[in-house]
Amino acid sequence: MSLLSSIGSPEDVRRLSPEQTTQLAAEIRAFLVDQVSRTGGHLGPNLGVVELTIALHRVFASPRDTLVFDTGHQAYVHKLLTGRQDFSALRKAGGMSGYPSRAESEHDVVENSHASTALSWADGVAKANAVQGRPDRHVAAVIGDGALTGGMAWEALNNIAASQDRRLVIVVNDNGRSYSPTIGGVANHLHTLRTTRGYEAFLSWGKRTLHRTGAPGRFAYDWLHGLKKGLKDVVAPQGMFEDLGLKYVGPVDGHDVSAMEHALRRARAYGGPVIVHAITEKGRGYTPAEQDVADRFHAVGQIHPETGLPVAPSRFGWTKVFADEIVQIGRDRPDVVAITAAMLHPVGLAPFAEEFPARTFDVGIAEQHAATSAAGMAFAGLHPVVAVYATFLNRAFDQVLMDVALHRAGVTFVLDRAGITGDDGASHNGMWDMAMLRIVPRLRLAAPRDEPTLRAALRAAVDVDDAPTVVRYPKGAVGDPIPALEELDGVDVVARHVPGTRAGGPDGRRVLVVGVGSMAPAALGAGESLAAHGLAVDVVAPTWVMPVPEALVKLAGEHDLVLTLEDGVVDGGIGAMVAQRAAEQGVRTPFVHVGLPVHFLDHASRDQILTAQRMRAEDAVRDALAVLARD
Amino acid sequence: MSLLSSIGSPEDVRRLSPEQTTQLAAEIRAFLVDQVSRTGGHLGPNLGVVELTIALHRVFASPRDTLVFDTGHQAYVHKLLTGRQDFSALRKAGGMSGYPSRAESEHDVVENSHASTALSWADGVAKANAVQGRPDRHVAAVIGDGALTGGMAWEALNNIAASQDRRLVIVVNDNGRSYSPTIGGVANHLHTLRTTRGYEAFLSWGKRTLHRTGAPGRFAYDWLHGLKKGLKDVVAPQGMFEDLGLKYVGPVDGHDVSAMEHALRRARAYGGPVIVHAITEKGRGYTPAEQDVADRFHAVGQIHPETGLPVAPSRFGWTKVFADEIVQIGRDRPDVVAITAAMLHPVGLAPFAEEFPARTFDVGIAEQHAATSAAGMAFAGLHPVVAVYATFLNRAFDQVLMDVALHRAGVTFVLDRAGITGDDGASHNGMWDMAMLRIVPRLRLAAPRDEPTLRAALRAAVDVDDAPTVVRYPKGAVGDPIPALEELDGVDVVARHVPGTRAGGPDGRRVLVVGVGSMAPAALGAGESLAAHGLAVDVVAPTWVMPVPEALVKLAGEHDLVLTLEDGVVDGGIGAMVAQRAAEQGVRTPFVHVGLPVHFLDHASRDQILTAQRMRAEDAVRDALAVLARD
Repeated sequence: MSLLSSIGSPEDVRRLSPEQTTQLAAEIRAFLVDQVSRTGGHLGPNLGVVELTIALHRVFASPRDTLVFDTGHQAYVHKLLTGRQDFSALRKAGGMSGYPSRAESEHDVVENSHASTALSWADGVAKANAVQGRPDRHVAAVIGDGALTGGMAWEALNNIAASQDRRLVIVVNDNGRSYSPTIGGVANHLHTLRTTRGYEAFLSWGKRTLHRTGAPGRFAYDWLHGLKKGLKDVVAPQGMFEDLGLKYVGPVDGHDVSAMEHALRRARAYGGPVIVHAITEKGRGYTPAEQDVADRFHAVGQIHPETGLPVAPSRFGWTKVFADEIVQIGRDRPDVVAITAAMLHPVGLAPFAEEFPARTFDVGIAEQHAATSAAGMAFAGLHPVVAVYATFLNRAFDQVLMDVALHRAGVTFVLDRAGITGDDGASHNGMWDMAMLRIVPRLRLAAPRDEPTLRAALRAAVDVDDAPTVVRYPKGAVGDPIPALEELDGVDVVARHVPGTRAGGPDGRRVLVVGVGSMAPAALGAGESLAAHGLAVDVVAPTWVMPVPEALVKLAGEHDLVLTLEDGVVDGGIGAMVAQRAAEQGVRTPFVHVGLPVHFLDHASRDQILTAQRMRAEDAVRDALAVLARD
Repeated sequence: MSLLSSIGSPEDVRRLSPEQTTQLAAEIRAFLVDQVSRTGGHLGPNLGVVELTIALHRVFASPRDTLVFDTGHQAYVHKLLTGRQDFSALRKAGGMSGYPSRAESEHDVVENSHASTALSWADGVAKANAVQGRPDRHVAAVIGDGALTGGMAWEALNNIAASQDRRLVIVVNDNGRSYSPTIGGVANHLHTLRTTRGYEAFLSWGKRTLHRTGAPGRFAYDWLHGLKKGLKDVVAPQGMFEDLGLKYVGPVDGHDVSAMEHALRRARAYGGPVIVHAITEKGRGYTPAEQDVADRFHAVGQIHPETGLPVAPSRFGWTKVFADEIVQIGRDRPDVVAITAAMLHPVGLAPFAEEFPARTFDVGIAEQHAATSAAGMAFAGLHPVVAVYATFLNRAFDQVLMDVALHRAGVTFVLDRAGITGDDGASHNGMWDMAMLRIVPRLRLAAPRDEPTLRAALRAAVDVDDAPTVVRYPKGAVGDPIPALEELDGVDVVARHVPGTRAGGPDGRRVLVVGVGSMAPAALGAGESLAAHGLAVDVVAPTWVMPVPEALVKLAGEHDLVLTLEDGVVDGGIGAMVAQRAAEQGVRTPFVHVGLPVHFLDHASRDQILTAQRMRAEDAVRDALAVLARD
C-alpha cells in the first residue's frame, strides 16, 4: 500500500515522519503525472507546490485554520491530502472540479480561478477571526509571484500590513512566472531577494546541514531575523515587504518539506502577518515540463506521460487565426501594438511578440492597467490591441468604461475563450462579456462566426480610432467557413428557406433566425429544421452586434418570429438588445432567446453544457415552435 | 492688474521670476477661496497643489509634454494656468467642468474622476512616446498618497519600473489622506519617509539655505543620490519604490515652488522613471479647511468664505438615513461590520465607526479588496456592509460576481449617489449599477423610494446570508414618505386611479406605472396625469427589483401598457428586465421605458439632466400616450 493511499485527511499528513513526507511528495508527483496525463488539467503548477502543500497541512489544522489557494488550479495536492484521490473524472461532469470546491470538501474555501484574490480572502477571514475573538484560528494564503502583479494583491497587502495583530501567513510561491515569466518591478525585486548571496549560501549550506540535522530551515529564519537590519539589507535585502510593515521569512526552498515546515511554524508562531517566500519550480520533477521554457505545462490536455506530447494534436483554432492575422496587421500598421496580461502564448500573441518585440507589452496579471495604459497609448497616437480571456475583462470593466470609452480611445479588445469554456468551471466561462459591455457607450462589438469573419473583424476593429472595439470568439477549433448569401446593411444572410420547398408544406409564417458568432452553425441547423416544418426561414449571422444593427430591427419587423442564439447570458444579451430596440420602434414580433441563464455553470464539457442549457439547434427549434403554436 | 490675470498660458508661468511664483501662488489661493466659496467645488485638494502645479508647468512644456492629474478634482490650478480663469459657472451646465476636460483645453488629458488611474495613463503615453521615437516628450503624473492604495496604481508602478528608458516623472502628492487620512502599509511607509531624521534635517537646512542660494531642492537630491545605498537606507529610507526599481527624489516641500521646481528638473533630466515625493497640506492656507481634521474641505457647496460655513445647510438626506439605521442595526446585530473605501464620512459610516470602531474597516481606495475581503468575512461568520458611491462599485464588478456571488456570501453593498449626480460630470453619475448587476446570479437589489423603505431594505438586506444584496439610493435630500396602499407579493401599490373619476372620461384602457426608487414621485405624477386622460392607472413602487418580482410580470399582463421609470441606464435596466421576463411568459403588453440612454452625461444639475434626458413625469406621460395612440 502506498503512503499516499493511506492519507485520508490532513491528520494523517501530520502523523508522518519527516522522511515519510519526502516519500509522500515523490508519490504525489508520480500520481499527478500519471493521472493528469490521462484527463488533462493543470499539471505544471501542481508539480510546483507538492512539498509546500504537504508542509502547509502539517503546520496548519484545516478547516479550523483556513487555507486559501490563489487561482485554484494549484490545489490538486491539497485535494489529495484532504480525502480526494479519485482523479479519474477530473474536470468532467460529475467528477472532481479542477479548482477548490466547497461542495467537495470543508477544506476548500475559494473557488474563484481569477488571480490575485487570495490575500483579500485571507484578510477578510483574519479580520473576522479577530472581530469574533478567535485568536486560535490562523489563516494561510498561497499566492504566486505572478499573482502579486495584480492590483488586488497590493490592495490586500496594504491592508494586511495595517493590522499587526492578525494571524495571517502569506506564502509567496515564487516560481518566477505566472503563465509566462513574471514581469515588472515586483518580479525584479523577488529575483533580487532570491539571487542574493544569502540565498545561494543558504542553499548550499542547507544541503549540507540537511544531512546533519534535518532542519535547514532554521538557518534561514534565524539568520535573517537574528541580525541587525542594516546588515540584513546588505546580505539579503527584504525590501518592500518590510517597508510595508510585513515580516518576511525567506527565501526558503519550496521543495524541501522540512525547510518549508520550519519556516511556516515560525511564521505561524509570530502572531502577526508574515510573508514566507518559497522558491519553487513550475513542473518540478517532470522532465518534459521542466524543459518547456515557454509554458512549463501550465495546463495540458491528454498527454503521453513519458514524452508529454499531446495524445490528440489540437485542431487549428480561433486563437491561431488571431495569432496569424494580428501579425499581418502589425506589418501593415506600425501604429498597432499588442498588450497581454501575462498570457502571451495562451492568447496567441507570441508570433506578434517575436516579430515586433518593441510593440508588445506584457503588463502582468493586470487587466485594469492593460485597459488604461492602452487608453494612454491611444491618446498618444497608437492603436493598442488588448488580448485577454473574456472572463478576465470583467476585471477592467470600470477602465473600459471610464478610461477607454469616455475618452474615445481607439483600443481593440480581443476576447479569447468567450462563451462556454466548460471544464474549468464557473469562473472561467466567458459568458458575461456581451451583457456587461452593452452598457459601455460608443463600444462596438464583433462576434465573428468563422475564420474569414474573424480576420475581417480584426481589420475593421483596428480601423476604429475613436471608440473601443471588441472582437470575441470561443475556445477551441474554428469550424468551416459559413459564407454570406448576401449582406443587408452589415448583416450577413447565411441561409434562406422558401416555404413549400420542404416536406411539411408551406406554413406561411416567416421566422428570422439570428446566430451570434459561434452559434451560427446551430442557427443554420435550426433554420433547416424550421424549414422542414414548412416555415419560411431567413438565417442571419451578423458579425458586428453592438451597437444593434438597424437592419436587424428592420428584419425583425418583417418576420413573424425572431429566434436568437448566442453564447453568453441571455438576460440583457444581444437577443434582448435587438428585442428592446424592436419594441422601442413599435415592432411587435415575438422573440425567442437561446443562450445562458444568469447562473453559475458547474464544470462539464462544452457540449454537455450546451445540452443541459438547451442551447442546441433542436432546443431552439422546439422553443420557437412552441411560441408559434401559442400565437 | 494681478499677476494671475496676466497668465494666459503655461509660457507665461515659465517667464516668471522665482519671487513672482510665490506671489502667483498667493493670488491663486485667494482666488480659489473666493470663487469656490461662491460656486461650491473641490476646495481642499486644490489649495494643496498650488505650488506643485506652478512648478510642474515651469518644468514641463504642456501639451508637448503630457501632464496627468489623478482624480481630476485637483486640476483647478492647472486650469488657471492654462487659460481658464472664469470660474463663475464652475460645474454648471455650459460652464467649466470640475475636472479636466479635453473639450476645454489641449492641456487636459484624463477626464475620469475615479482614483488611481494616472500612472496607467502616464505609462501608456510614455510607452507610446518610446514606440514612436519621441525621446523629447516627457510625461508627468500627479497622484495622491491616498490613490496609491488603489490596486491599479500598483499595477502601473510594477510596469513603469520594468522599463528604465521611459521619460516619466511621478509626483506623489503626499498629504497623508485621501478623503480621510490614508490607511495601510503604504501610508505608513510614506510616513516613515517623511518623518525620518533626513526629512527633518532637510526642512530646517532647506529654510536656511533658501535665503542663501534659492535652491534647497538640490540638497535633497544630491544628498539622497550621492551617498551609498547602505548609508542612505539608514538616514533616509527610500524603501519600496527603489526596491521596485524606481528612482526616488524627496521628500520635497510641496509648498515651496523653487524646491519643487528643482526636484522636478532633476527628475526630468534623469531620463528614466522617477518618483518625486512632495509633502503637501490639504486645504493649505485656508484656516477653516486647515482646522477641519475630518475632511479638510474636500468638496464643498456654497460657503461663507471667511468662516467656511455652508450658505444653505443641507437637508436631511439619504446618507443620513443610512448612517442612522446602520448604527441601530449594529446594536442589534453584533455580526454586522462596515467596510468603506476611503469614504467614511461621505457615505455616512462615521457614526457607526464611532460606536463600533473594531467593526469598521477603511480599506483605502480599494473597492476590489473591499468586496473580496467582505466575502472572506462572510465566510467566517460576519455580515459585512460595504458602503461606496454607486459609480465606484464598477471597479469591483468581477469581485462581486466571482468572490461574493459565486461563493454565496452574505454581503450587503450600499450604493450612495446612485443615479444622476450631475455636477461632477460623466464619471460620477451612478447610472450603471443596475444594468451591470443584473447579470450577477443570486444578487438581490433594492431601490428604496423614501426613508421608511430605505430603513426596511437595509434590515432585510442584512438578513440575507447566502447571496449579495444591494441597496441603492441617490445623492441629496430624501423626500416625503410615499406609503403603500397595499402590497401585492412584495410589490407596493402606491396609487390607483379608477377610470371615469377624472376629467376626460373613461378610456377603458389600463396603464401600469412602475417607479423605481427615487423615480417613485415622478411615477406618481405620471399616474395622476394619465388618469386625467381617462385611463385607469395603477402606480407601483417595488423596493426589491432584482430578481424581477413575479408580481410585476403578472401585473404587466393585466394592463394595456407598462410605463417604467428608473434612475439608471434604460438599456438592460429594470424596466427592460421586467419586459424580457414578461415576453418570456407570453405577455404581449407594450412597455415604455423612461431612464438614461447609454451615453456619457455632461456636467449639469440633476434637474437639468432629468429635463434634457426626458425623464420627468410629463415626458413619461407623453411617451406613454404616444404608444397608446399607436395601438
